[in-house]
Amino acid sequence: MKIRVVAPVVSTSLVAAVFEQYRGAARPDTEMSLATLDKGPPSIESRYDEALAVPDIIAKVVQAEVDGVDAVIIDCMGDPGLEPAREKVSIPVIGPAETSMHVAAMLAHRFSVVTVLDSLIPAFDHHALRAGLTARMASVRTVGIPVLELDDHSRLLDALVVQSVSAVTEDGAHLIILGCTGMAGMVQGLHSGLQAHGINDVPVLDPTLLAVKMSEAMVDLNLSHSKRTFPAPPDKVIVGY
Amino acid sequence: MKIRVVAPVVSTSLVAAVFEQYRGAARPDTEMSLATLDKGPPSIESRYDEALAVPDIIAKVVQAEVDGVDAVIIDCMGDPGLEPAREKVSIPVIGPAETSMHVAAMLAHRFSVVTVLDSLIPAFDHHALRAGLTARMASVRTVGIPVLELDDHSRLLDALVVQSVSAVTEDGAHLIILGCTGMAGMVQGLHSGLQAHGINDVPVLDPTLLAVKMSEAMVDLNLSHSKRTFPAPPDKVIVGY
Amino acid sequence: MKIRVVAPVVSTSLVAAVFEQYRGAARPDTEMSLATLDKGPPSIESRYDEALAVPDIIAKVVQAEVDGVDAVIIDCMGDPGLEPAREKVSIPVIGPAETSMHVAAMLAHRFSVVTVLDSLIPAFDHHALRAGLTARMASVRTVGIPVLELDDHSRLLDALVVQSVSAVTEDGAHLIILGCTGMAGMVQGLHSGLQAHGINDVPVLDPTLLAVKMSEAMVDLNLSHSKRTFPAPPDKVIVGY
Amino acid sequence: MKIRVVAPVVSTSLVAAVFEQYRGAARPDTEMSLATLDKGPPSIESRYDEALAVPDIIAKVVQAEVDGVDAVIIDCMGDPGLEPAREKVSIPVIGPAETSMHVAAMLAHRFSVVTVLDSLIPAFDHHALRAGLTARMASVRTVGIPVLELDDHSRLLDALVVQSVSAVTEDGAHLIILGCTGMAGMVQGLHSGLQAHGINDVPVLDPTLLAVKMSEAMVDLNLSHSKRTFPAPPDKVIVGY
Amino acid sequence: MKIRVVAPVVSTSLVAAVFEQYRGAARPDTEMSLATLDKGPPSIESRYDEALAVPDIIAKVVQAEVDGVDAVIIDCMGDPGLEPAREKVSIPVIGPAETSMHVAAMLAHRFSVVTVLDSLIPAFDHHALRAGLTARMASVRTVGIPVLELDDHSRLLDALVVQSVSAVTEDGAHLIILGCTGMAGMVQGLHSGLQAHGINDVPVLDPTLLAVKMSEAMVDLNLSHSKRTFPAPPDKVIVGY
Amino acid sequence: MKIRVVAPVVSTSLVAAVFEQYRGAARPDTEMSLATLDKGPPSIESRYDEALAVPDIIAKVVQAEVDGVDAVIIDCMGDPGLEPAREKVSIPVIGPAETSMHVAAMLAHRFSVVTVLDSLIPAFDHHALRAGLTARMASVRTVGIPVLELDDHSRLLDALVVQSVSAVTEDGAHLIILGCTGMAGMVQGLHSGLQAHGINDVPVLDPTLLAVKMSEAMVDLNLSHSKRTFPAPPDKVIVGY
Repeated sequence: MKIRVVAPVVSTSLVAAVFEQYRGAARPDTEMSLATLDKGPPSIESRYDEALAVPDIIAKVVQAEVDGVDAVIIDCMGDPGLEPAREKVSIPVIGPAETSMHVAAMLAHRFSVVTVLDSLIPAFDHHALRAGLTARMASVRTVGIPVLELDDHSRLLDALVVQSVSAVTEDGAHLIILGCTGMAGMVQGLHSGLQAHGINDVPVLDPTLLAVKMSEAMVDLNLSHSKRTFPAPPDKVIVGY
Repeated sequence: MKIRVVAPVVSTSLVAAVFEQYRGAARPDTEMSLATLDKGPPSIESRYDEALAVPDIIAKVVQAEVDGVDAVIIDCMGDPGLEPAREKVSIPVIGPAETSMHVAAMLAHRFSVVTVLDSLIPAFDHHALRAGLTARMASVRTVGIPVLELDDHSRLLDALVVQSVSAVTEDGAHLIILGCTGMAGMVQGLHSGLQAHGINDVPVLDPTLLAVKMSEAMVDLNLSHSKRTFPAPPDKVIVGY
Repeated sequence: MKIRVVAPVVSTSLVAAVFEQYRGAARPDTEMSLATLDKGPPSIESRYDEALAVPDIIAKVVQAEVDGVDAVIIDCMGDPGLEPAREKVSIPVIGPAETSMHVAAMLAHRFSVVTVLDSLIPAFDHHALRAGLTARMASVRTVGIPVLELDDHSRLLDALVVQSVSAVTEDGAHLIILGCTGMAGMVQGLHSGLQAHGINDVPVLDPTLLAVKMSEAMVDLNLSHSKRTFPAPPDKVIVGY
Repeated sequence: MKIRVVAPVVSTSLVAAVFEQYRGAARPDTEMSLATLDKGPPSIESRYDEALAVPDIIAKVVQAEVDGVDAVIIDCMGDPGLEPAREKVSIPVIGPAETSMHVAAMLAHRFSVVTVLDSLIPAFDHHALRAGLTARMASVRTVGIPVLELDDHSRLLDALVVQSVSAVTEDGAHLIILGCTGMAGMVQGLHSGLQAHGINDVPVLDPTLLAVKMSEAMVDLNLSHSKRTFPAPPDKVIVGY
Repeated sequence: MKIRVVAPVVSTSLVAAVFEQYRGAARPDTEMSLATLDKGPPSIESRYDEALAVPDIIAKVVQAEVDGVDAVIIDCMGDPGLEPAREKVSIPVIGPAETSMHVAAMLAHRFSVVTVLDSLIPAFDHHALRAGLTARMASVRTVGIPVLELDDHSRLLDALVVQSVSAVTEDGAHLIILGCTGMAGMVQGLHSGLQAHGINDVPVLDPTLLAVKMSEAMVDLNLSHSKRTFPAPPDKVIVGY
Repeated sequence: MKIRVVAPVVSTSLVAAVFEQYRGAARPDTEMSLATLDKGPPSIESRYDEALAVPDIIAKVVQAEVDGVDAVIIDCMGDPGLEPAREKVSIPVIGPAETSMHVAAMLAHRFSVVTVLDSLIPAFDHHALRAGLTARMASVRTVGIPVLELDDHSRLLDALVVQSVSAVTEDGAHLIILGCTGMAGMVQGLHSGLQAHGINDVPVLDPTLLAVKMSEAMVDLNLSHSKRTFPAPPDKVIVGY
């Protein structure tokens, strides 16, 4: 099958690195491809960044369906453009935030999200609210590192460990969700860091890897989003698009 | 004071007619102005329409602040672009959906929204969820008329009366919210229609008029959204904008 | 228009001072008047105080409608008598607690209330619950000052600043609601106090001022509470009243 | 032990009849007494009736404690004055609405309340909300009979059966709560009526009887409401009381 | 009347000691009896322990009904087997956890549970969720003592006091529920311990005593669980039982 | 990888048929095996059936881990024994009910469950409550066919179509979950049936197939339930096991 990762940003080295994580999670017979935006921000750190990325995200998801792709992953923990994109296509469109919260709720009593910046906390609260999981999300914590500096893996890992340990011991988290797709690949390091603090019973969920598996599952099952929830938009001329 | 109505659509005769409703609700000393989009759809009837309108909505809100406007109203019951626009400015930005649901909850035990099309029901459910008012919204009902046909007032009024009567007698609504700003001006007619069915104790809330009053109130009180909830986005080059 | 402030207490100097705040918030063409109770407590600091104030609160609201007043504000953050008073009249009756919580929810992700005494915390929890805003109220904090000592502005301001800073930095509040109408007039001082602690992105909401604006809005829009939610009580002889 | 029933109304023949139901539920060694109001309405059918009854309800509860009574029942499904009365005394004060909803939730997946008049529906919704049982209350239905006409037992029973059958078959109720203490004594008749419609697996809960048992339990256990939730009100002169 | 305590464990000295507490709470005319399991664990400290106890719990409840017992108490704060047992019998089956949470919610704004081990916290969260009382449960705290060591009363009391004081002062609890029936008999000691810390307004609820009173109430009222919620299971051969 | 289906019943022809559905959903390199109970009921239609199946379910899950199996599916929409089994093993244990509700919430605004018997409705309500999805489950409907008669596919399909059409048109469902694993294999037929009623935008989710995919995903990702939520039970002698 074919899965397309739509990075909701213009091309960056971080995107390329993260794509390798996606690719590594795919089954041997799954063909992974990457699309980046022609118009949009280099990183998503605000609702404004998200809003300006969405039109081209949708275009890239539509193109994926035209290209015969079987499922699309939107490569961002804000799930930007997930709903309008689903209106425009019939193939499954997977949001890492939505998917990881629901799966976390199956695996643990309470989970915490460790993301990049404080300004994103309300957005994660909204994701949890819409998923019905407000009471299951122990906390949202932040490493205080902008997205484009996440490639400093040593700094990132140190901060992830500090925040995850606090999430477990102070907030009561039983599972950690990596709160930015730019943190892909940190699972092993974080596990080791937690163990160094005596915590060896807390799974770490990497939303990028999970998104690949959920995409494969949807395609295997010939399942997609409900077109009654996401009906095709009425045809109309949209100026400038 | 100066209030700017940002219509999240390209210019249409409906927008001009609705703007007269806004203007009529303003105090004599309030100066009302209208901005329509250069890029965007002629009407908002899907999340896709909304997504493609948002970038220029934000631009128009930013321009309003540059122009010395005191408050902005986004003229749509989807409140499109409300959150990213608030990140970019300090002046109050008023969403008719959010405002009317909260005010309805002050005035009545349960309210119903009567909007245009079934495809918008999930969006109203989400608005109610985020406002904490899921249990207070008796129902979302639809007249089955596309936005651009709302200027057929006779057809619209008939359908509004039918749906509002059902909302009251079947769903237990104690107040009706007009669910599309394109329905502005129908309060009197709907009141009469309800009375013809023996219902004279149910207020009808017109979100356009209410948005003007809420804007005036915010400006009078020198009050605006929290910049801790809506911080200014990090500076960055966004390609294509 | 005419707005009547019904203070739910017998006349005190604090009431007179607070009324000046209400009056200052009104538009030039709004005529403000004040009613105090003939029977009731000098301050409201318990459900018992509230219960004994309510019969005369209702009488004063009814008198306001007889007097041709356009809207009534109940001058207390417990909103005492709001519901029975609404049953007895058709003009809008505004509760500062209800109003400020709903408006706070429009302006900020989470808000805190800073009120006088710990014994009032359950009541604020109930207000939030009824407004659907339990998850949006970050905390209820108290200054530990009885109502009739609130005129010691220096002591009050110091305590307000301490509690508000904690609400922001420890509880995650993005907006502060002054939790007693006797705190009217403290907005500027509290803003300055917050800024002295490096917090300049957190609005302070004064429920007295907001209540005036909401009253004006309701009258402008010819809008009031639903008589289906608040129907006129059946006629009956009530002994002693 | 001694239990005092405080009827929140001036003396009526209905009150006397209902008191016999309370008395009949008591253990042989429980001494039951009745207090009616000197000031207040003849029946409670609105929040206004309730508000004017509350001051003398509190006085009667305080008198009960002075009289050496062990527990007090407030004889109304609105639980009027429950909270302020608890502030003034240390002995248990039992509200039939609160008690019956919590016990219903232990016995059945969903329950319905069948009460007198539509105007009381919001109040029952609030009781359920505060008890956390919104999703467990299948419906509130009404017999459309004013309180003082409830002594027409034949008319009452017919209406109770009709509404209870609908509650079970249409709303999914698994248990019926009699929604007015004036309906005391109808359990057997309603059971028979339900059986005549083929429904023999639905308990009927009479809040008056249950209130007696809960009172006895509290006294047996030397248990009462938390004085941290219901602290004694600050001492002050209350004019007119 | 006859009440049977079904201890969900094989016979231990702790069970015998706790049974004396149950017996002491009964009215003089109530005949108490005890059943222990033939097959099952010596204590319940995990969902696994619970699962293996349940089949014989059900058998013992069924036997109680055969024996002419009027009500059954399942002697464990996990309420193990409550639902399947109710399917098999018509007499009331009382769960101490369910009962104590609902009664706590009547008596206090917020309550805390102090139980034995951290591994039980999710189970108490689930009890609160099902009772609708998530927001009313201030915290679940643990003494860190395995069930079979609870007979070291001095160690237990010290830990109960420490945790209860923290529940009150840090978590905002207004009432304490003893979170294991093996803690029966500690009410007086805990009250004294709280008073030594200046806390004299916080009731302590012993679920064993309360369960006896609730059982007596149900039998007095001829009331039991709804057989529409707990219908008799279809007849079938179950291998091995 | 190796996946074990644990049927929570003694061997029946239905179990064998359903197992073929599981096997058909697996990837070519996934080795599927089936375990049935030695002790337990022939079908699960009550909490009692479930309770008596659980001890041997746990044993079979433990045996699966001993056998080197990578993941276990409990073949029942009650997810019986899911939690205690997870305490005893480290490999993922998948519950079809939990999994299908969370995945349904990702794909549709509201879903309905169509299951076998009315007596199971409270259990599905509890599943939705624990998953946080009460407001997302449009309804639970039943075909009124006992489990062991589900092999009459024509009768089953007719009833599934009738109930699913009502779920969509009356209850507002946007997706249908097959509410019993004994309904495995009915997706195509139900899709056709819905289309015959003009409904072609509503996905049908078969929990058996989904459970296989979720199992494969967990194994691929080396992910399992949190052992902090499901810690190993304390060692103890359990009489009779």
